[in-house]
Amino acid sequence: MSIAAKARLFVPADLRGGSEIALPSEQAHYLRHVLRLGEGDAVALFNGRDGEFHATLVAAGKKEVRLQVGVQVRPFAAAADLWLCFAPIRQGRIEMVIEKATELGVGRLLPVQTRRCQIAKVNGDRLTAIAREAAEQSERLDVPPIEPLVTLEKLLGDWPAGRRLYVCAERSEALPLLTAALPRPKDEPCAALIGPEGGLAPEELALLLRHPAVVQVTLGATILRAETAAMAAIAILQAVRQN
Amino acid sequence: MSIAAKARLFVPADLRGGSEIALPSEQAHYLRHVLRLGEGDAVALFNGRDGEFHATLVAAGKKEVRLQVGVQVRPFAAAADLWLCFAPIRQGRIEMVIEKATELGVGRLLPVQTRRCQIAKVNGDRLTAIAREAAEQSERLDVPPIEPLVTLEKLLGDWPAGRRLYVCAERSEALPLLTAALPRPKDEPCAALIGPEGGLAPEELALLLRHPAVVQVTLGATILRAETAAMAAIAILQAVRQN
Repeated sequence: MSIAAKARLFVPADLRGGSEIALPSEQAHYLRHVLRLGEGDAVALFNGRDGEFHATLVAAGKKEVRLQVGVQVRPFAAAADLWLCFAPIRQGRIEMVIEKATELGVGRLLPVQTRRCQIAKVNGDRLTAIAREAAEQSERLDVPPIEPLVTLEKLLGDWPAGRRLYVCAERSEALPLLTAALPRPKDEPCAALIGPEGGLAPEELALLLRHPAVVQVTLGATILRAETAAMAAIAILQAVRQN
Repeated sequence: MSIAAKARLFVPADLRGGSEIALPSEQAHYLRHVLRLGEGDAVALFNGRDGEFHATLVAAGKKEVRLQVGVQVRPFAAAADLWLCFAPIRQGRIEMVIEKATELGVGRLLPVQTRRCQIAKVNGDRLTAIAREAAEQSERLDVPPIEPLVTLEKLLGDWPAGRRLYVCAERSEALPLLTAALPRPKDEPCAALIGPEGGLAPEELALLLRHPAVVQVTLGATILRAETAAMAAIAILQAVRQN
């Protein structure tokens, strides 16, 4: 019989019943001093490949917190094969994109540099920490990787065959995203691309439209902020997969 | 011939070509001192009933900013007949719900008090200001009203006949929202209800399920924060309307 888990943590270690894991200092601090857990308390662990396991604090010292891994409570299931490509936006809003897209089950996050983008770099470690926290809270079994920032040209040059790329453009006469995505096979690999606040430059849109993977779509009549467009696109594409 | 509008403002006044409008001090300050507009500069105006009009600053004094209303640039079109009922959540996150739901074109925002709700009141003026700003930015032609906080019992007691209420519940075996909404007539009046972070109490869910307007739905396998659930539900219901 298991007691209810008081926290849910992503750990990089392999998870096997009976093994012991030492937590890194940040997670140890969180369990000990934020949640005030002690020896005998239960937590849930996942690592992005072995599913979810029950675990028990067996040592909760000042310097080290150790967990004994118990039974598997959920087998691993991969996230949807659904990517989000997005032009970096300003601090306070980019975090929202990472958090919400992770909650909504996106499989991979790909920041893309575009002409009208105001932000020239992204803090991958910081965004990965936000994705990890969102994965812990949303009961996902993995943390979506955040890829290094690339140019739009590089993104398209490396684009894998067979993956559709829905380019969400404002004020376009294109098909609504739902209308474009509904008739497709549910498990088709796909991605949404959201431009920066200023929109994609005409030459960028032209470059995109020449690529065979690209389908231009609209998210409706109103003008959405970049982070709203990203969340709406992922919510709609996930809903299509679950329909 | 008109020059490009440098701002887009909601005003309560009637809009008719040739009339003059004096702006309240907050908007006057915004045009004069934030955007640094002067006489002759163009702005766009909307009031939630007359469509959108071109207007020109004709007086930009210290004490008063006056606009002359020009031609109508868009006729009025009502927002989708789509409501969002939501349990108030903590500051910083409730603003996100209002902003994003407004951008996504929600018609009316109804805060609802539920048992597990941590917040006992909402600042209607503050939330209305956020909705107004989101409407200005998103090129909506109206600002969704934010209703006074009511209990769940009151909400259901006053529920209008013929309006579906999609209750989004976590970990339920219910139909996905998209699957439930797709077969319905596109212009059917409807609403989404999102519970508080702790979820709806069992007796609340039972009360809801006894109501003929209610359809219980799920937003997918992951656990969404309340504001993420609200945005996803509105994005999906809007997509269905535009499909």
